[in-house]
Amino acid sequence: MHNPQINRHGELQHLLTLDGLPREVIVGILDHAAPFTEVAEREVKKLPLLRGKSIFNLFFENSTRTRTTFEIAAKRLTADVVNLNVSTSSTAKGESLLDTIDNLCAMHADMFVVRHAASGAPVLIAQHLQAAGRDHIHVINAGDGRHAHPTQGLLDMYTIRHYKHDFGNLVIAIVGDVLHSRVARSQIAALATLGVPEIRVIGPRTLLPTAIDAMGVRTFSDMREGLRDVDVVMMLRLQNERMAGALLPTPQEYYKVWGLTAEKLALARPDAIVMHPGPMNRGIEIDSAVADGAQAVILPQVTFGIAVRMAVMSMLAGQ
Amino acid sequence: MHNPQINRHGELQHLLTLDGLPREVIVGILDHAAPFTEVAEREVKKLPLLRGKSIFNLFFENSTRTRTTFEIAAKRLTADVVNLNVSTSSTAKGESLLDTIDNLCAMHADMFVVRHAASGAPVLIAQHLQAAGRDHIHVINAGDGRHAHPTQGLLDMYTIRHYKHDFGNLVIAIVGDVLHSRVARSQIAALATLGVPEIRVIGPRTLLPTAIDAMGVRTFSDMREGLRDVDVVMMLRLQNERMAGALLPTPQEYYKVWGLTAEKLALARPDAIVMHPGPMNRGIEIDSAVADGAQAVILPQVTFGIAVRMAVMSMLAGQ
Amino acid sequence: MHNPQINRHGELQHLLTLDGLPREVIVGILDHAAPFTEVAEREVKKLPLLRGKSIFNLFFENSTRTRTTFEIAAKRLTADVVNLNVSTSSTAKGESLLDTIDNLCAMHADMFVVRHAASGAPVLIAQHLQAAGRDHIHVINAGDGRHAHPTQGLLDMYTIRHYKHDFGNLVIAIVGDVLHSRVARSQIAALATLGVPEIRVIGPRTLLPTAIDAMGVRTFSDMREGLRDVDVVMMLRLQNERMAGALLPTPQEYYKVWGLTAEKLALARPDAIVMHPGPMNRGIEIDSAVADGAQAVILPQVTFGIAVRMAVMSMLAGQ
Repeated sequence: MHNPQINRHGELQHLLTLDGLPREVIVGILDHAAPFTEVAEREVKKLPLLRGKSIFNLFFENSTRTRTTFEIAAKRLTADVVNLNVSTSSTAKGESLLDTIDNLCAMHADMFVVRHAASGAPVLIAQHLQAAGRDHIHVINAGDGRHAHPTQGLLDMYTIRHYKHDFGNLVIAIVGDVLHSRVARSQIAALATLGVPEIRVIGPRTLLPTAIDAMGVRTFSDMREGLRDVDVVMMLRLQNERMAGALLPTPQEYYKVWGLTAEKLALARPDAIVMHPGPMNRGIEIDSAVADGAQAVILPQVTFGIAVRMAVMSMLAGQ
Repeated sequence: MHNPQINRHGELQHLLTLDGLPREVIVGILDHAAPFTEVAEREVKKLPLLRGKSIFNLFFENSTRTRTTFEIAAKRLTADVVNLNVSTSSTAKGESLLDTIDNLCAMHADMFVVRHAASGAPVLIAQHLQAAGRDHIHVINAGDGRHAHPTQGLLDMYTIRHYKHDFGNLVIAIVGDVLHSRVARSQIAALATLGVPEIRVIGPRTLLPTAIDAMGVRTFSDMREGLRDVDVVMMLRLQNERMAGALLPTPQEYYKVWGLTAEKLALARPDAIVMHPGPMNRGIEIDSAVADGAQAVILPQVTFGIAVRMAVMSMLAGQ
Repeated sequence: MHNPQINRHGELQHLLTLDGLPREVIVGILDHAAPFTEVAEREVKKLPLLRGKSIFNLFFENSTRTRTTFEIAAKRLTADVVNLNVSTSSTAKGESLLDTIDNLCAMHADMFVVRHAASGAPVLIAQHLQAAGRDHIHVINAGDGRHAHPTQGLLDMYTIRHYKHDFGNLVIAIVGDVLHSRVARSQIAALATLGVPEIRVIGPRTLLPTAIDAMGVRTFSDMREGLRDVDVVMMLRLQNERMAGALLPTPQEYYKVWGLTAEKLALARPDAIVMHPGPMNRGIEIDSAVADGAQAVILPQVTFGIAVRMAVMSMLAGQ
């Protein structure tokens, strides 16, 4: 079955992945998000766009941080939000996952925000809704396995556009554990769609996907070489659980080779911005002086993330 | 002390059990629930009936599913809802449970939705409130031990009435682990009160209560015989924790003898409906073809369940 | 860095500790709390003072009870409340704690209610906000290590004022494990500021702080002697985890020597009130007959606690 995130009118029905999402839809979301950044500055940070709507945060994988961003975005849109932390053990079978969905649909859910350790779970849910003709119920992928994390990708695009205005002449580097990163996948897909002429991927060979060249990116296993003259440095989080494995050296060794320091950042363009999806491992993939430095836009990413999530939610289910 | 769920004016003060609840009260709840099914179809699923009321979901036993149904019902009534997952270990003594209640009362609670592993805990709470003269605070039993699960029983009655209109000439079968099922207890009590002439209980002898005949039901240990010409088949969930014990054969053997298949269902009346309280063990107590088939009303049960809970909550504490 | 809880205009910027909080500020909070006790009596327990504000309950240490009091207070003020139960393991380093704070600030948080096992964590957060010039974001300490629990101290002051009207001629005894009690620290600081002429601390020598005399209190290791003619008895909770240690005898022995019984209470003034911060260990630090007796004001403390928290929240962040 095809990816059901665009309906037959070319509109966003679900947000599942940025891979294959048309340029005009991505730009439309970014345009839609802009006014929401102002809502957050108001005395009363509240809009009635989702009043009376029932949004279920379905977290099959625990992530307090991501759940919080969606919860506060939904509440500022006046939705009714219910958090469900569903242990994966009780939904080991795909069938059981869809029974859970059917049940929540029967409660007249309007939207599912889904986090799942298995790649494809949100797509499976969206296909299930489509097959049942439930076009009024929407799915947002809040991170699935190694597959995608589209709202993270969108907030990254929003941030780049905010600081660099135009994607058409940028050199952008993504640094770190691309192999295991759903964030990187979403970023690369969106950057390519938005016409970034040069996307670089920098990391140890063991952490670069083998089919990386097929993604239309240039790979670098020398960080200094890869950072030279870039406009944007997008750091990835080193997953702690990877560090324990055999794939990687010690954190200290990783930092020495792959950590972003002021000295390495100096190789990028002087006006280059530094991004990170958080939470940061300071002293491992990024030095504190850079994380807190003038070129970092890591906290604005978080701010724009709320606006982007409010935009997506209201585009999908708003009155 | 007597069951305090009916006040001296004959009105519902708490919802603790369907056992002994007068017919006119049950019918009154079902009548009251009907308009709430329409609220769920609206663009804005919201009524101000419980605005400014404080509802505490007191779950001494974890149940994400049941908690969700009460939480969304309360939010659609505009109540302030606070979820408390209280580990039973910290409230091992009954005294401590009542101290928790006293504390929440002192915070001006309006309603407690109580789930507890111990049969009788919600009754104990209601009696305690009555003894203290706190008539403005209400208790809803969301499942206590093997005792009762009255909102489940009520939504089952609502569903039967919706599809069969009249209780007066129905043959209804309850199938499965009746011995350990608070759901079955609530169902039998309500069906009897509503005048169902023939209630059948079908299950392995080891899972039928010994005093079953005293409940005014006919028992069958042959499923095919029991299903013959029934109007309604109410399946019970096989508790996973029972399967591990010595009481039962393997899931495969259970399914062979007690699972509801299309072939067995064909013995019932052609217009028989199939119900299940969820979550289903597909391939154990029910075949997927039946669960998803034309006779199943399992998802409508969930929908009606929200309406019934909104009805009960607003009857108890509404303005 | 100094304690940043009072801003340059002498107003409350954060609520971190009662130690050093000026008398007029404490009295101002108590005065402000009074009308909120009436809100709780209304049909619609709701005020719009924090509408559109985002309050994060940041509980690095689990406490369902305390979290509930802040959550219901915030909801009655119409705030958007997000609960974050953050395991201390994921924020072992102070730096990581402040990254969490920076992230929530970037989401346009208005207030943090912080519970932390480490003394000083809320002060650290407040200093961090001050250094960043984020004067519009407020911190309430909901209990930090052995340091302070200021809203508990304030509700205790409210309770004493409610029943005794004037602090100027009271003899007040605090009984129990003062050594480990943040509650006791907050109580002593406030009582001294409010001019209570005689504050007594009663407990086993092993549970009295060594520098106790410097706090301006009289110590008693004989409970009967210490209770003689007091106006207020403030019992402390015996921390269960202490009982397992070597510091204490068995619960039975503790009760015999330090438990508040009717016989011991008779040594106090006839109109003495009995207070306890909850949850009570009945039969250990307090006899049930006393806890439920005519002199106990333990449940009014809880009621006043909601009003005090609503007062503090609305003073800090209200329109």
